[in-house]
Amino acid sequence: MHADLLIHADWVLPVDASDATLVKHSLVIADGRIAALLPRAEAETQIEAAKTLELPGHVLIPGLINAHTHSPMSLLRGLADDLPLMTWLHEHIWPAEGRWVDQEFVADGTRLALLEMLRGGITCFNDMYFHADVTARVCAEAGMRVLAGMIVVDFPTRYADNADEYLRRGLELYDHYRDHPLVRPAFAPHSTYAVSEAPLERVRTLADELQVQVHIHLHETRDEVMQVLRTHGERPIARLDRLGLLGPQLVAVHMTRLEDEEIARLAETDTQVVHCPESNLKLASGFCPVADLIDAGVNVALGTDGAASNNDLNLLGEMRTAALLAKGVSGRANAVPAEQALRMATWNGAKALGLEREIGSLEVGKAADVVAVDLSDPHTQPMYHPCSQLVYAASSHQVRHVWIRGRQVLRDGEPLTLDPAVILTAAREWAGRISED
Amino acid sequence: MHADLLIHADWVLPVDASDATLVKHSLVIADGRIAALLPRAEAETQIEAAKTLELPGHVLIPGLINAHTHSPMSLLRGLADDLPLMTWLHEHIWPAEGRWVDQEFVADGTRLALLEMLRGGITCFNDMYFHADVTARVCAEAGMRVLAGMIVVDFPTRYADNADEYLRRGLELYDHYRDHPLVRPAFAPHSTYAVSEAPLERVRTLADELQVQVHIHLHETRDEVMQVLRTHGERPIARLDRLGLLGPQLVAVHMTRLEDEEIARLAETDTQVVHCPESNLKLASGFCPVADLIDAGVNVALGTDGAASNNDLNLLGEMRTAALLAKGVSGRANAVPAEQALRMATWNGAKALGLEREIGSLEVGKAADVVAVDLSDPHTQPMYHPCSQLVYAASSHQVRHVWIRGRQVLRDGEPLTLDPAVILTAAREWAGRISED
Repeated sequence: MHADLLIHADWVLPVDASDATLVKHSLVIADGRIAALLPRAEAETQIEAAKTLELPGHVLIPGLINAHTHSPMSLLRGLADDLPLMTWLHEHIWPAEGRWVDQEFVADGTRLALLEMLRGGITCFNDMYFHADVTARVCAEAGMRVLAGMIVVDFPTRYADNADEYLRRGLELYDHYRDHPLVRPAFAPHSTYAVSEAPLERVRTLADELQVQVHIHLHETRDEVMQVLRTHGERPIARLDRLGLLGPQLVAVHMTRLEDEEIARLAETDTQVVHCPESNLKLASGFCPVADLIDAGVNVALGTDGAASNNDLNLLGEMRTAALLAKGVSGRANAVPAEQALRMATWNGAKALGLEREIGSLEVGKAADVVAVDLSDPHTQPMYHPCSQLVYAASSHQVRHVWIRGRQVLRDGEPLTLDPAVILTAAREWAGRISED
Repeated sequence: MHADLLIHADWVLPVDASDATLVKHSLVIADGRIAALLPRAEAETQIEAAKTLELPGHVLIPGLINAHTHSPMSLLRGLADDLPLMTWLHEHIWPAEGRWVDQEFVADGTRLALLEMLRGGITCFNDMYFHADVTARVCAEAGMRVLAGMIVVDFPTRYADNADEYLRRGLELYDHYRDHPLVRPAFAPHSTYAVSEAPLERVRTLADELQVQVHIHLHETRDEVMQVLRTHGERPIARLDRLGLLGPQLVAVHMTRLEDEEIARLAETDTQVVHCPESNLKLASGFCPVADLIDAGVNVALGTDGAASNNDLNLLGEMRTAALLAKGVSGRANAVPAEQALRMATWNGAKALGLEREIGSLEVGKAADVVAVDLSDPHTQPMYHPCSQLVYAASSHQVRHVWIRGRQVLRDGEPLTLDPAVILTAAREWAGRISED
């Protein structure tokens, strides 16, 4: 068998149909895809690879998928904390964005986010922000996989004047990247309170035609639900249902304050849910009933949200928070066990983004989006269950190697496609300007 | 001014009466104590130190205080996860402990815990476990500060046969360490359900006489509260109140399911509360009403609990979880801001352990228990508010230097008083034996 790379690892968590932990197995990469996953003893006799990598003490997992973020907001990390959503948005974040967000901000902020995400084992993310063309370009250059959000809001920004112009700019992005191997466009109408009905209907029609996902904030807070109910006489989910937007193409982010019949309707329509536990906690938004959603058969993925409301883009930590919080909120200590938390951050993320045939598990034929985590640190020892150590104790600095489509983008914790010194200098310059404002 | 060490740091969070962030300040250590904390420009002209350390990009904080743990249980990390408290205790943890816990287990487990805690900036911890004499000895050797718990339970173990013998062994520990600079003894009756009334009364009398703290699990779960109510006709807090145990010497750990009058009584008696958010979530124990306790004037410290129910001993992470969870549970995004979370892990911990005159803040005259955290990693950049980056984004591997009583115990992330290779080998051997059992 032809092979570009043969990796020997102590453990592999493939996140396939089973929740198996493979011991002393080897992963074979050829032409950017997973060519084989087999016991080490067999690999040693059967595989001739151009390169072999020994990873004792490491676990191999599928690349982590951050199913909701606003990557350029990493430049606003820690600017305004300990505030409720609407105060935070209206008095701090939107004014700062209105003043500062241009193409250069988006390029520098995306690079800072990529640096953090690659170092933390994230190989794909679902982004919603202005100037998504810039984010898409930066990701393509860095070898990062992205769902670039064709953002839509009603209000004018430096990026676009009105919903029509947002859509027009989104479609330019679509045309440019429709066949790109790493960049996939998706519609990203901000929310039912920031986008009116006509553009939402236009998004539905275009998403059907182009077969792309629709990424939206939904049921983030009680205030949002109440405001939409007051203004439109229906709850936000009912509104999207009436507009024909519920379904497997809808990526609904946050989803707190759900009623039983809403959960049933999400399951019935196969609507995708993205859970952002740390952001929901930090903004006191409410609790997403993750255990109930999973019991109802809804696909639940995980997102970090932006760094201004988290404040990191660390999906290992988010898995842990999701596993812990689901137990606390449901009152059941067996809710979201470690294996399920890992699945939320990988396979479920791929399904939410419409990419489950390409990524989300370590299975033969899928793209080689692979992460190696070193579990030999004292805080992940001794070893009884690798998945438990990964979810409940590992920290992102233990991510040592990352491959996307078979291309190594992180080696020994160091990025190969980004320049940290340049990125950090740019970030400090932005903070200096924004602080003085 | 005589000085052993002069540290120049970009920021200092002293956690004194104010919540100030000092910029470009310098800390002076002499004879194990903090001799001065002053602007760098003044330090450069006034201080002649035997040694000077430049820490650009670092923040100095008081040593973190882990106010509740069972350090030797680090050897059981990940043995049994995703289970409710009583199943976890009765079917997994207590059988494993009954089979394996001896002096060697405690020595090896404590060392693994110390390695993790020192690397994470913890300089003092409040421990409850069998063979506390071994834990005390290991801490004294490693230069770690500890409140060694004189454990009491009704049931026999390999450590003692009955409550009288537990108390006798505790008092031996007290006699040995009463004047030790790092090791302080404290009573540690396990809980109101595992210790009967006569030994609890004896603990109260002895604690009064010897002026030591009393460390107990209290109101961990609804089941505990209901069981004690059924058996004794009163809730656990009422029971301790009747026995005269509420007060500033009582260190009450967990404290979920609190009623308003219980919170008022805790405030009235100045009882110490230790919040263990990650353990409470993981075991689905319930929520400690931290924001309400703080509003009522109760001192709330932070603990990791043991590594078998967390699964790490990372107080930086616990600060973050505490800050996030308090917002989620109270529904107020301004509950437990970053500065308060840091205070819970430092000054409040010192108060809970009766050590607030000695440690808990960076103030002149206090012991030099100091931690330097490097905030120049991409995920803690750019810099608007150092305390926000520390609490909401920093990770324990960014802890670079740790001093306890002026003695450096961690340098550039490497322990100076512990041998990681020896400790990890011993941990792996224990896991091998326990797994095969």
